[in-house]
Amino acid sequence: MHELVRRLYPLCRSITGDGVRRTLEIVGESIPLDVSEVPTGTEVLDWIVPKEWNIRDAYIKDVATGRRVVDFNESNLHVVGYSVPVPPTVLSLAELRGRLHTLPDQPDLIPYRTSYYKETWGFCLRHETLAGLPEGDYEVMIDSTLADGHLTYAEHVVPGRTDREVLVSCHVCHPSLANDNLAGIAVAVSLALRLKDPYHTYRFVFAPGTIGSITWLARNRERAAGKIAHGLVLACAGDRGSLTYKRSRRGEAEIDRAAAHVLRASGREHTVLPFSPYGYDERQYCSPGFNLPVGCMTRSTYAGYPEYHTSGDDPDFVSAEAMSDTLETCWEVFQVLERNRRYANLSPYGEPQLGRRGLYGSLGGRSDTQRLQVAMLWVLNQSDGVSPDCALLDIAEKSGLPFDAVAEAARALAEAGLLKEIR
Amino acid sequence: MHELVRRLYPLCRSITGDGVRRTLEIVGESIPLDVSEVPTGTEVLDWIVPKEWNIRDAYIKDVATGRRVVDFNESNLHVVGYSVPVPPTVLSLAELRGRLHTLPDQPDLIPYRTSYYKETWGFCLRHETLAGLPEGDYEVMIDSTLADGHLTYAEHVVPGRTDREVLVSCHVCHPSLANDNLAGIAVAVSLALRLKDPYHTYRFVFAPGTIGSITWLARNRERAAGKIAHGLVLACAGDRGSLTYKRSRRGEAEIDRAAAHVLRASGREHTVLPFSPYGYDERQYCSPGFNLPVGCMTRSTYAGYPEYHTSGDDPDFVSAEAMSDTLETCWEVFQVLERNRRYANLSPYGEPQLGRRGLYGSLGGRSDTQRLQVAMLWVLNQSDGVSPDCALLDIAEKSGLPFDAVAEAARALAEAGLLKEIR
Amino acid sequence: MHELVRRLYPLCRSITGDGVRRTLEIVGESIPLDVSEVPTGTEVLDWIVPKEWNIRDAYIKDVATGRRVVDFNESNLHVVGYSVPVPPTVLSLAELRGRLHTLPDQPDLIPYRTSYYKETWGFCLRHETLAGLPEGDYEVMIDSTLADGHLTYAEHVVPGRTDREVLVSCHVCHPSLANDNLAGIAVAVSLALRLKDPYHTYRFVFAPGTIGSITWLARNRERAAGKIAHGLVLACAGDRGSLTYKRSRRGEAEIDRAAAHVLRASGREHTVLPFSPYGYDERQYCSPGFNLPVGCMTRSTYAGYPEYHTSGDDPDFVSAEAMSDTLETCWEVFQVLERNRRYANLSPYGEPQLGRRGLYGSLGGRSDTQRLQVAMLWVLNQSDGVSPDCALLDIAEKSGLPFDAVAEAARALAEAGLLKEIR
Repeated sequence: MHELVRRLYPLCRSITGDGVRRTLEIVGESIPLDVSEVPTGTEVLDWIVPKEWNIRDAYIKDVATGRRVVDFNESNLHVVGYSVPVPPTVLSLAELRGRLHTLPDQPDLIPYRTSYYKETWGFCLRHETLAGLPEGDYEVMIDSTLADGHLTYAEHVVPGRTDREVLVSCHVCHPSLANDNLAGIAVAVSLALRLKDPYHTYRFVFAPGTIGSITWLARNRERAAGKIAHGLVLACAGDRGSLTYKRSRRGEAEIDRAAAHVLRASGREHTVLPFSPYGYDERQYCSPGFNLPVGCMTRSTYAGYPEYHTSGDDPDFVSAEAMSDTLETCWEVFQVLERNRRYANLSPYGEPQLGRRGLYGSLGGRSDTQRLQVAMLWVLNQSDGVSPDCALLDIAEKSGLPFDAVAEAARALAEAGLLKEIR
Repeated sequence: MHELVRRLYPLCRSITGDGVRRTLEIVGESIPLDVSEVPTGTEVLDWIVPKEWNIRDAYIKDVATGRRVVDFNESNLHVVGYSVPVPPTVLSLAELRGRLHTLPDQPDLIPYRTSYYKETWGFCLRHETLAGLPEGDYEVMIDSTLADGHLTYAEHVVPGRTDREVLVSCHVCHPSLANDNLAGIAVAVSLALRLKDPYHTYRFVFAPGTIGSITWLARNRERAAGKIAHGLVLACAGDRGSLTYKRSRRGEAEIDRAAAHVLRASGREHTVLPFSPYGYDERQYCSPGFNLPVGCMTRSTYAGYPEYHTSGDDPDFVSAEAMSDTLETCWEVFQVLERNRRYANLSPYGEPQLGRRGLYGSLGGRSDTQRLQVAMLWVLNQSDGVSPDCALLDIAEKSGLPFDAVAEAARALAEAGLLKEIR
Repeated sequence: MHELVRRLYPLCRSITGDGVRRTLEIVGESIPLDVSEVPTGTEVLDWIVPKEWNIRDAYIKDVATGRRVVDFNESNLHVVGYSVPVPPTVLSLAELRGRLHTLPDQPDLIPYRTSYYKETWGFCLRHETLAGLPEGDYEVMIDSTLADGHLTYAEHVVPGRTDREVLVSCHVCHPSLANDNLAGIAVAVSLALRLKDPYHTYRFVFAPGTIGSITWLARNRERAAGKIAHGLVLACAGDRGSLTYKRSRRGEAEIDRAAAHVLRASGREHTVLPFSPYGYDERQYCSPGFNLPVGCMTRSTYAGYPEYHTSGDDPDFVSAEAMSDTLETCWEVFQVLERNRRYANLSPYGEPQLGRRGLYGSLGGRSDTQRLQVAMLWVLNQSDGVSPDCALLDIAEKSGLPFDAVAEAARALAEAGLLKEIR
């Protein structure tokens, strides 16, 4: 995963353009992608697909020395995203200042700025660079194109035994920022590779933030309304912070409870946040018209670390261990979704005699009861076939047992003919 | 407000009589009052309007010295409320003792006692006064009248754009006690004066405790059943304790949630209590037959301070700052009631593009999101037009934002055509 | 109660056999019992009544010395319950080891072990005894019978004014273990003796654990479905730990709330546990097909003390004070069940005038309100005759008043014609 992050890192992505296309090509080397190109001007929900932006070069040159003091080739963060073309133009430092964005409190970092919907241009630079610039004339140039074109997004689908879908969504619009969201892309690719003959159909969407998910939703209204059973926005998947799950707008959707269960059962530090309508593309999936059961898995939260949206979010900021931990946690959440079922106890009057069926230790009187036997008693007791809250995840939560133990108990009991799945 | 308290303080109020009439005359100088006189013997709910009580003088005189050792002119608390007339009568101190009420634990304070429904008489005095009385003969006299007459209460109405009413109720039956309830009366008058063209109709009821609110309810059964949308009993509004809101019997009525929100958002020490069926006139408004959404705002609670129902509750016990704080808090609660509405997001699929409408900062990527923008996202996300709990107050509570910010966001969004009010 | 424990202690009980019969005979000296004998092979729910087991003698004899190193006559725990007959047989210590059960961590205690449903034999002994045995030959003998016979259980019924029943269930299958469950039997006997003309019908079931309650349920399906209104499994009633109530599967059944209320109102240390499907016979009563409102009252919890299922659970382990405390607590719980009713306030508009009816102190203004008067206000205020949660126990919980005060207030109000019971 870390290799993929390093390979994608230099590309200059934005909400449209060749950076996104090249990113999807590289992802497509690992998992087959279905790429969509949506023309500029297309109406998507309340929005309109904007012009396509591409950039080749940009700089601020000290006229006195001829030296590039700010150079797009050094970091694509140096140019405000969607900057309009600027032919070589000489300006005094005073004239230029209004176009320059820095972080006075983090003077050694380049900020990340964009202006998608208001045509303008500007540069981002280290505050210490700006502080060192002598007064005088500077030549600025931005070799960009902002013209009719397309918005690009891609999907990868792992078909399941049911057409009920698990949506995994990653934004692919950030330029050289590693945690936000190359780590999320890398974890999504690994999840896709690991899925083999799943119960649910898994749909991975790689799309630019906001306008991309809005475009996808506009073109998948029926799927959204009828097929998406669970969903996860994956972002900030690689920093060294502990895991954070932000609930869907529904708050107690199955994905919400599965994620909270897996995190709690891990015994490790973690955070489960209520829904809020800012953050990543869960904003769109959880807009009230759609209200999809889509949560958001991150490590540190949206805008929750000093390196957020700065050049400090580089490949060294993310760790292979952290990405692997995010991957395993998402995998466990998926395993809960895959195996969570409701059953009816076919012998609900009194406990069935488990010993006769080889499911119970024969020597009574011992004070240590095995976890699997306890799990069987819980499953039998709760699976009344009537209560709405008697699925295996409910039983895991009530009993305090890990989902795995409960699911294993259910499997054993079903094999012994004591349980019947309820659809 | 403090001036009004000082002016009303010397009057000898009771549940009937000229003290109440004079009090209402003085209040009527600030706000026009509609005064009702209800004859003795009138059946009101389960009660009967009692005889009217008036008193002119009363004393205990040391026969040996001719000195008044207890004098009604010094404090009207000295006589048990509703004491029957007693012609000048000489009794030994031993004979008199059963008629004397003191506070042994607060020897320098005169207690407040009444006997409305059992005809008797008595005196209240400082325990230290009693301790200093030599054995011997004492002359007692009470120049009172207890006869058919009227119970007096008054109303002040500020008409609103709707006939749904906010009831503000103050008891006016306590003699020289400042916090209980002259401060409440003073705050109610100031609230009434401040209301200009409100949305709700505001009804201020100044009535004797218990029998007064029962009388008002008996004569306003239809209004109680159909018009009272919210209500507040105002008492103990001027002591130096922090604010206390006691919920209505409903517990989660809009007034309850508004008051709890305002107090919480204030960031200051405060208490929110569950309903209990003792205290002030909320006992009557929240009786199960009426079950009105009427809470009670006080500073220190009912019977919750050492000076309660003693001569220690004098004008120095209340402060102008405390009354002003109570006033502002009630005002803010009213502002929540005035502005709390449900809306439907007219663009519920995805977020509407706020930037295009001038409602969103155009430069993306910044990690500081403005509070108003966050409030707009919350309002849009929650206003699904369907959920019962999507009024602005619900949104303020879910988001943790102050109600003001949420209401301001809703105003901006409605102006931009993105929200429609739901009736 | 302690005398009964000491008298029952030496008997060798099991899930069938003469030990149970003799136990029931002794209990029957205090309260009349209706004894049932159910033949081996009878199908009971998912189970089959097993063969009857009786034992007369058993030992392990050191061949070298002729001394019984393990002797059934010293403690009936020495033989694994339901051990098949073993004629005198000489085995080396090495051959014998697989048949020997000890507690290495509690070397001075004999464990309690059974093998009801797998025919085998074995001995239980102190680990220190085993450690002291020289290598060599040992003669083992078990003079037991395992043959067709009967399972025995008994019932004692105290008829009430209604045929709705309170079930009290004790297991009677453990041999020489005092807390588990001779103390439970002793407390049940005392409860039965104390009941005089109760409102509910009280049914005491003395049956072997698991198979006994299953047998009772199999033979009382209609009663279980229609008559059992409340129930309590009584076990571990005499140890020195604080009281524990484990809720029924329903969680908020009236018995659950009554027990939690009584324990909380006691002001003493106690534990209220959620339901879990392991423990005593609540496992069967709360199986999903029956789902009876049956909780479990113990002191220390099931398997929750070091002496559990060892020879350490002897008559000195239980105390008369603890059994008396369990008895009084169960009694108070029953008193709540007996008196918990819903009422309608017949004067629901405003407070009724209690003073006129002699129910209220006549001298107003005092800051101390009597508890009974407060309880009357609570009962009047909450008894709207409509809310599902306006029974006296609900009112006790909401008000924080003890149930007794609330019930006494309701009695006084009903006598005054202010309340009507709702059926």
